[in-house]
Amino acid sequence: MSCYFTERFAELVPYTPGEQPQDMQYIKLNTNESPFPPSPGVAAAVAAECGKLQLYSDPESRVLSEKLADVYGVCSDQVIMTNGSDEVLNFAFMAFGDEKSPLVFPDITYGFYPVFAQLNHIPYREIPLTEDFRIDPEDYIACGGTVVIANPNAPTGIALGLDVIERIVAGNADHVVVVDEAYVDFGGESAVSLVERYDNLLVTGTFSKSRSMAGARLGFGIGSASLIRDLNTIKYSTNPYNVNRMTAAAGVAALEENAYYMDNCRAIIANREYTAQALRALGFEVLDSSANFLFARCPGWDGGELYRKLKARGILVRHFDKPRIADFLRISIGTREQMERFIGATAEILEG
Amino acid sequence: MSCYFTERFAELVPYTPGEQPQDMQYIKLNTNESPFPPSPGVAAAVAAECGKLQLYSDPESRVLSEKLADVYGVCSDQVIMTNGSDEVLNFAFMAFGDEKSPLVFPDITYGFYPVFAQLNHIPYREIPLTEDFRIDPEDYIACGGTVVIANPNAPTGIALGLDVIERIVAGNADHVVVVDEAYVDFGGESAVSLVERYDNLLVTGTFSKSRSMAGARLGFGIGSASLIRDLNTIKYSTNPYNVNRMTAAAGVAALEENAYYMDNCRAIIANREYTAQALRALGFEVLDSSANFLFARCPGWDGGELYRKLKARGILVRHFDKPRIADFLRISIGTREQMERFIGATAEILEG
Repeated sequence: MSCYFTERFAELVPYTPGEQPQDMQYIKLNTNESPFPPSPGVAAAVAAECGKLQLYSDPESRVLSEKLADVYGVCSDQVIMTNGSDEVLNFAFMAFGDEKSPLVFPDITYGFYPVFAQLNHIPYREIPLTEDFRIDPEDYIACGGTVVIANPNAPTGIALGLDVIERIVAGNADHVVVVDEAYVDFGGESAVSLVERYDNLLVTGTFSKSRSMAGARLGFGIGSASLIRDLNTIKYSTNPYNVNRMTAAAGVAALEENAYYMDNCRAIIANREYTAQALRALGFEVLDSSANFLFARCPGWDGGELYRKLKARGILVRHFDKPRIADFLRISIGTREQMERFIGATAEILEG
Repeated sequence: MSCYFTERFAELVPYTPGEQPQDMQYIKLNTNESPFPPSPGVAAAVAAECGKLQLYSDPESRVLSEKLADVYGVCSDQVIMTNGSDEVLNFAFMAFGDEKSPLVFPDITYGFYPVFAQLNHIPYREIPLTEDFRIDPEDYIACGGTVVIANPNAPTGIALGLDVIERIVAGNADHVVVVDEAYVDFGGESAVSLVERYDNLLVTGTFSKSRSMAGARLGFGIGSASLIRDLNTIKYSTNPYNVNRMTAAAGVAALEENAYYMDNCRAIIANREYTAQALRALGFEVLDSSANFLFARCPGWDGGELYRKLKARGILVRHFDKPRIADFLRISIGTREQMERFIGATAEILEG
């Protein structure tokens, strides 16, 4: 820290992205990326923008917003597009969190929530997951703050049903409930259908996982038009041209080829079930996942040790050196071949 | 504003981007874009990324940072890459501004500075430009805060010499001085050469203007390694993957074809001088510009009226309905043909 750095952020501990080591070619199962490339139309759509890059992108991302609204069955004024879903989450924390409406989220969830809270000096309360790593909805009814729930949750992969989400939304009419659906396409139920009836619901999503665009940075929020206006107040005070032309065009093309991505999701779900079964056969405890990753531990093994042994064999998974979950690994689901190699390497390690 | 919007931002007045009307094809001289497309290598570099979009971008933008450092003669740890230069400016305001180090900038400058200050609840002081719209360096020596100077300034286009910038940087050793060089390639002198000697200097730049990439969103900051670390603390708490793969690749290609862009800058400077001369011949007062725009007024004419009459003729320029500058127009410099049409339309309007 330099002598010029503000004291306001002296305690700020930034988020740690998943590692991207360059020393060798790894099987990358550590950042929940899709193993499949974008759909065929994406490259052509991007190429068509390259001759127009001298012109600013549309701050309203109109074409993209309308296409997304169409696919999700909402109006375009119920949509905001952002530079990845981290951005819409940060905007939501800024817009709806404060001393009067502190943030409430699980103790084990997406690691960026406490960072955004600290960044914006918003008080927050972490509610412990149950012993079996589930969200107890009763903890979130009338809990007196802005609720943030990842559904399916990360890194557990466990999903709540739509009825449970609706109870939480209905039970917090005085506060916004943010449902972060980064992983919903892998087996969760989306809460977008509730947006018409609940003005306090904001659903966030990303093109990074099911739509194979982590490297293009595209996220979105869907909520009542009045919530979206609030988020736009923040956006137009932060970075009006947040979504660049190429990413916007790629997003439109991806939405037009939705069937390709939904096929990929089915393949990933099948690979996940194969991997879960194989891990259980090796003695692992594997949480029920509705996401494109598994969260698993092997009795008698430290998660960090397994992580290091897998890395030495050219396979990257994610290990969180945190209370309650230090013995777990989070394993992104890749192709069938990648998962077979992961299982093979794991079996070797266990055999010593 | 919804009933959920935080009181913390109740007074926030967002930035207003330049209009992008869709009702007809305009000659767009209102957002300081380049009239030239990106260099030939950009499209190929972007195309090579499209098959890898399922993988996250490098949060460190290593390849791009090293290339930029090389072109600017600094080390890569003295560089941060951002989603447009608005983002690096916001990060700098967050990192270096607070009650103890309020922001200090001219009353007439880039309109986003007061918005960023309000967004971050940082006190700020606006120092009036002189009667002839110049920055008086004496106003900024030991002024007791974080100094932000656009050089050349916008919307005036007037540049300060490197010796003057150095006096301001040296005269504020206890605070950071941010020099926003969005327009420096059109005739200004860059302060990057001072970074080695002054730990409190942060130079920001953009690929939007001279490098024809407004629609790709790429900005950067250059400063001492310790200032860059501070900015990274903010970045990794906000949006670690802020620069997407396509934009990063486009940036590398653009830096490899720097000569193309410097040729374009020379053409724009020549068109600017042609336009300034023609406007003066029509009776306009035209400020001395070192940027890719002119700031001009015509005695007896209201700026808003001229703006509207030009728009009716299919030519968009920027008018700021603000004290001191309401009679001015800001005219971006396009191709020679565009500027001839602008001059022709203006002459018609003046003749009534």
